[in-house]
Amino acid sequence: MKGTVGELGEFGLIRELTSRLTSTPAVKIGPGDDAAVVTAPDRRVVATTDLLVEGRHFRRDWSTAYDVGRKAAAQNLADIAAMGAVPTAVLLGLVVPAELPAAWPVELMDGIRDECQVAGAAVVGGDVVRGDTITVAVTALGDLRNRAAVTRSGARPGDVVAVTGWLGWSAAGLAVLSRGFRSPRAFVEAHRRPEPPYHAGPAAAELGATAMTDVSDGLVADLGHIATASGADIDLRSAAIDVPAQMTDIGQAVGVDPLHWVLTGGEDHAIVATFPPDVKLPARWRVIGEVTTRGGRTPQVTVDGAPWEKAGGWDHFGVDA
Amino acid sequence: MKGTVGELGEFGLIRELTSRLTSTPAVKIGPGDDAAVVTAPDRRVVATTDLLVEGRHFRRDWSTAYDVGRKAAAQNLADIAAMGAVPTAVLLGLVVPAELPAAWPVELMDGIRDECQVAGAAVVGGDVVRGDTITVAVTALGDLRNRAAVTRSGARPGDVVAVTGWLGWSAAGLAVLSRGFRSPRAFVEAHRRPEPPYHAGPAAAELGATAMTDVSDGLVADLGHIATASGADIDLRSAAIDVPAQMTDIGQAVGVDPLHWVLTGGEDHAIVATFPPDVKLPARWRVIGEVTTRGGRTPQVTVDGAPWEKAGGWDHFGVDA
Repeated sequence: MKGTVGELGEFGLIRELTSRLTSTPAVKIGPGDDAAVVTAPDRRVVATTDLLVEGRHFRRDWSTAYDVGRKAAAQNLADIAAMGAVPTAVLLGLVVPAELPAAWPVELMDGIRDECQVAGAAVVGGDVVRGDTITVAVTALGDLRNRAAVTRSGARPGDVVAVTGWLGWSAAGLAVLSRGFRSPRAFVEAHRRPEPPYHAGPAAAELGATAMTDVSDGLVADLGHIATASGADIDLRSAAIDVPAQMTDIGQAVGVDPLHWVLTGGEDHAIVATFPPDVKLPARWRVIGEVTTRGGRTPQVTVDGAPWEKAGGWDHFGVDA
Repeated sequence: MKGTVGELGEFGLIRELTSRLTSTPAVKIGPGDDAAVVTAPDRRVVATTDLLVEGRHFRRDWSTAYDVGRKAAAQNLADIAAMGAVPTAVLLGLVVPAELPAAWPVELMDGIRDECQVAGAAVVGGDVVRGDTITVAVTALGDLRNRAAVTRSGARPGDVVAVTGWLGWSAAGLAVLSRGFRSPRAFVEAHRRPEPPYHAGPAAAELGATAMTDVSDGLVADLGHIATASGADIDLRSAAIDVPAQMTDIGQAVGVDPLHWVLTGGEDHAIVATFPPDVKLPARWRVIGEVTTRGGRTPQVTVDGAPWEKAGGWDHFGVDA
């Protein structure tokens, strides 16, 4: 793929992007018309949208276009899974500078397509426009398969809190990258390309999850959303939360408590849910705490009974990461 | 609404935006969770996405935030209608600079909400992130109500070509604005806030439309998409195409053939469709041409039998408008 986006032109680029896509039986009408048509077998569709902006959510010197595509798709597909739904389709809105090498959006599309395939979905449409800052807007759709959606508001006192997937790996990888290193590779890779446990969302719904979310802002912050929506307090047991030895090593090297990454690092898109206390969870779920009481005016998340004091979560308008 | 987006913060802004929304019976779960849930009564969902970038698709000195919101929603809702579907829901992805007055995104949201109400839809979710350039990414969903989708590919020789809605008004308004004028107001308003005939899309499907699209790139260009997808040539009769007297006046004032605006101006989101020759069309549809022959290798759109020579359509990577 030679030349720039401007040389290829809007329609040339769209042709190039759509030619790389694959389809699924859920796609009734794919890219190329005014809109796509996707099946919604149980008469409902789950829908979510997220944006990635260059310089804020990714850097071209830290991530390949392919990785940005994987990540952009992953964070939306994880939102679908966190409702208990199976992802079906993705739409892509893309802002690209005319002088950008055409290979960049093409590899981005490959990444989005491949991540969609991991989750069982397909890219069904999009829009490409010119602008100064690369911006990737992904919308994902999903199918609840006749189950009720698992929202953030159903956690009840006595429920256990359980998590599956990676925690703090992306944050540790970002810490490594931002100090100019490229290794340990596992953490850098985790930052570049999260691996959300998509299957775990619908599985948790089937197991009777009372509330669920994916960890995009950080475990404490995202459980805070569940606490607030459910009107209940949540207490985590630090002893139940694994901190990988290698993460401890990085923490020592860069002077950060690795538990901080695990508790506040977003972007790994682990799935955290609350379940009735008698739930039998599959092996890859870890019970890390419980819903303690009906919350007061400001339901809160504590760790070993105390507030987690260090900076929590991620506010896109706050200080830069 | 005082202060900037940065002062309000991400969660403060999201609270402010979502507090202004209204809902409909189609919305099962609205904003505030990982994803929304919307009904899809006939087991299919229609989906489309479009981006607007400041400086390219709108200017803050030419359009209010409210108008940008109306327009951003309208162009997506029109895509849904052009499939023959009824819009149900919209998701908003928004990039805003921290120093932007908070009133701007709030008024944008009001515009999106109000345009959704015109079309019968509701805003069900979104994402707000910080960035240097205001970017508005809208995704719209729709319901085909048990009808087949009307694509661009079904036009057959002998079909009539008919259009409903406004043509060239936005382009004439843009010409006025770009020369530093603010009137005639009707055209400036049309540029700021298109009025797509949403109802006409499902109505055309019901009338047996064989192909359909909304006019977003210009009449000749968008019919070109139908010609290409259908493998058929299309001929328009200029005598059948209304050029409003006031548009002729503007054309004379700025030295542009007003028919050029009508044939190549996008963004009014008129709906153009092909129908079997015996169709009985409601009064507000105008028959403007016909599908002539099975096209050759490069199906084309002609006007009075000849190619429309002047610049057609709109390539986002081409010369600036």
